[in-house]
Amino acid sequence: MIKNRITDLFGIKYPIVAGGMVWCSGWRLASAVSNSGGLGLLGAGSMHLPTLEEHIRKCKAATSAPFGVNIPMFYPQIEELIDMVIREGVKIVFTSAGNPAIWTPKLKEAGITVVHVVSSSKFAVKAQGAGVDAVVAEGFEAGGHNGREETTTMVLIPAVCKAVDIPVIAAGGISSGRTMMAAQVLGAEGVQIGTRFALSAESSASEEFKRRCLSLPEGDTMLCLKKIGGIRMIKNDVYQRIKEAEDRGAGVEELKEIVGMRRPKRGIFEGDLNEGMLEIGEVASLIDKVETVQEIFDDILGEYTLLDSGD
Amino acid sequence: MIKNRITDLFGIKYPIVAGGMVWCSGWRLASAVSNSGGLGLLGAGSMHLPTLEEHIRKCKAATSAPFGVNIPMFYPQIEELIDMVIREGVKIVFTSAGNPAIWTPKLKEAGITVVHVVSSSKFAVKAQGAGVDAVVAEGFEAGGHNGREETTTMVLIPAVCKAVDIPVIAAGGISSGRTMMAAQVLGAEGVQIGTRFALSAESSASEEFKRRCLSLPEGDTMLCLKKIGGIRMIKNDVYQRIKEAEDRGAGVEELKEIVGMRRPKRGIFEGDLNEGMLEIGEVASLIDKVETVQEIFDDILGEYTLLDSGD
Repeated sequence: MIKNRITDLFGIKYPIVAGGMVWCSGWRLASAVSNSGGLGLLGAGSMHLPTLEEHIRKCKAATSAPFGVNIPMFYPQIEELIDMVIREGVKIVFTSAGNPAIWTPKLKEAGITVVHVVSSSKFAVKAQGAGVDAVVAEGFEAGGHNGREETTTMVLIPAVCKAVDIPVIAAGGISSGRTMMAAQVLGAEGVQIGTRFALSAESSASEEFKRRCLSLPEGDTMLCLKKIGGIRMIKNDVYQRIKEAEDRGAGVEELKEIVGMRRPKRGIFEGDLNEGMLEIGEVASLIDKVETVQEIFDDILGEYTLLDSGD
Repeated sequence: MIKNRITDLFGIKYPIVAGGMVWCSGWRLASAVSNSGGLGLLGAGSMHLPTLEEHIRKCKAATSAPFGVNIPMFYPQIEELIDMVIREGVKIVFTSAGNPAIWTPKLKEAGITVVHVVSSSKFAVKAQGAGVDAVVAEGFEAGGHNGREETTTMVLIPAVCKAVDIPVIAAGGISSGRTMMAAQVLGAEGVQIGTRFALSAESSASEEFKRRCLSLPEGDTMLCLKKIGGIRMIKNDVYQRIKEAEDRGAGVEELKEIVGMRRPKRGIFEGDLNEGMLEIGEVASLIDKVETVQEIFDDILGEYTLLDSGD
C-alpha cells in the first residue's frame, strides 16, 4: 500500500489521511500529520472564514509538506470559502455532505486536487462522474455525521472499489496498522483516520473530551438523530434525552430543538461532557492514551510493517 | 490462516463455518459445507425437535466430515433439545442468544466442542469464563438477530481478539476471499459466513427469497425492531410498516403484534416477499448469483490464495 496512486496523488509518503474534524482539526493537528508523512486536513466545518484563513496560513508556516481542507458543502458562506481557499493556494480539498458536481469543476480549474467523502457506491459513482480525483468511503462505525444506509466499512470498501476506477480511501473503524492492512486487503489504497487523531496531543479537542473518549467502554457510542441526518455520539445525558424523544416518536422540529446549535462545540471543544454532543467513532473504545501524532504514525506503521513482513 | 487452532478444534480443512441460519441451514447445506472442507451447521432455531433429529441423521448419512448444530438458547424445549443432541452423538454445538454458563458444562461433559456467538468483548469474556472452546464475534452488518451495541466487524474483531485467549471466528460482512483475509488480518482464526451460504443452491430458502436477495441494491437492509431485540432485514412492505410504527414511537406490544410469529418462515422459506420478514446481511448486495457450496468454496479459496501469494 505504501507507494500507490494515493501517495502519488497527494505527494505524500504514507497513504494515511487525518480526517478534517470539527473542533479537532486545526493547524496544529493538520501540520503535524503532514510533517509525519501523511496528509493533514483542516476542518472548515467548525471555523468562521477568518479563522480558517488564519489556520491555513499557520499550517503553511508549520509544514512544507502537502495539506488540505475539508469542506462540508452545507457551509453557510460556501462561495466565499471556495474563493478564499483558491486565493490562499490550498492544493487539496476534501468535500463532504453535498453534491460534488457543484464545486468540483471550479476547484479543479484552479488546479486543486479534489476528494469527496461518500457512504455508498451510488454516491461514489456520482463523485467520479463529477470529476473528483479520489473518494473517501466512510462506514457506519465512523464518528459524527454518517450515511443513511448504515453500510459498514467491511461491506462498503469492496463495494465502492468495484464501482469506481479512481482510488478509494477507507474510513470508519480504522485506527491501527492492523485495520490499515485490512482496508488495503479490502481494496482501498489509503485510509482516513479520524478518532485516533481527534484524541492526539495536537488535536484542538478539550482535555475533558479526550479523557472521556479514552475511557470509553465498547458499545458506548450510538448513531442517533436519523430523522435529521444521523450522527454518531457518546451515550451521555444529551444522547439519553435524544433517545427518549426518539423512542416516543419525536418529530424533526422537537429533535432540532433538543440539538440546538452549539452542542458539538460545547462537548468537543469546551469539554461539557453532559450537555455537549460528543461526536466520536466506535473505535474510540480501543484507544487508551493521548499520543503525539508522531507516536501514532510510529505505532501504525510499525504494526503495518510487521504484518506486511508475514507477522 | 488455513491451518490453525480453528481447523484443529473442529478437525476441518478450511477455517470456514457456514452459519446455522433459520429456514436455510438444513442437512443439505450443512453436509455440503462439511464435504467441501468447512464446518456445516444445522440451524435448530427453525426446526421442531423431531425435524432437527431427522436433519441430524440425514447429515450424518450425507457426510463423514464434522458438522455441528446451532442452538439459540431461547429454544422452547431447550432441555430436550440438548439431551437429543447428546444422544445423537453431535460433536460440535454453537450456542447463541443467551447465557453460555447454563448449558456449556453439560455439553462439555458429553465431550462436545462448544462455541458461543457474541456481539461484544464483554460477552466474549463471559463465554470464555463459561468454558467454551471458541467464540464467533458477529458484527452489526450481519443478517437476522443482532447485538444491541451495534459494533461493526472492523471494530469488534480486534476488540474481542484482545479480550480473550480462545480462538475467535469473525462474522458479519464476510463473503469472499478478500473479506476472509481481512478478518484474519484483524486477528480472527476463522470466519462464519451466513448470507452467501443462505443464497447457495443447497440452502433451504425459497427461490423467491434468493432471487430477491441476489438483486438487492446496496443499503437495502436495515437493523430494526431494536425495542424487542434488533433484527436486520430487507426493506420490504413489512419493514416499512415496522419503520412507520417505530418512527411514531410504537411500544413493544404493538411491534410484537406487527411482527407476529411466522414472518421469517413466510419470507425466507415460503417466499412471501411482501409479508414475510426477509432476514439477510448487508453483504447480500455484493452477491449476484446462486452457486453451489463447492463453487462458493472454490471462489473464496481462490481469491484468498491469490491475495496470500501477494496478489
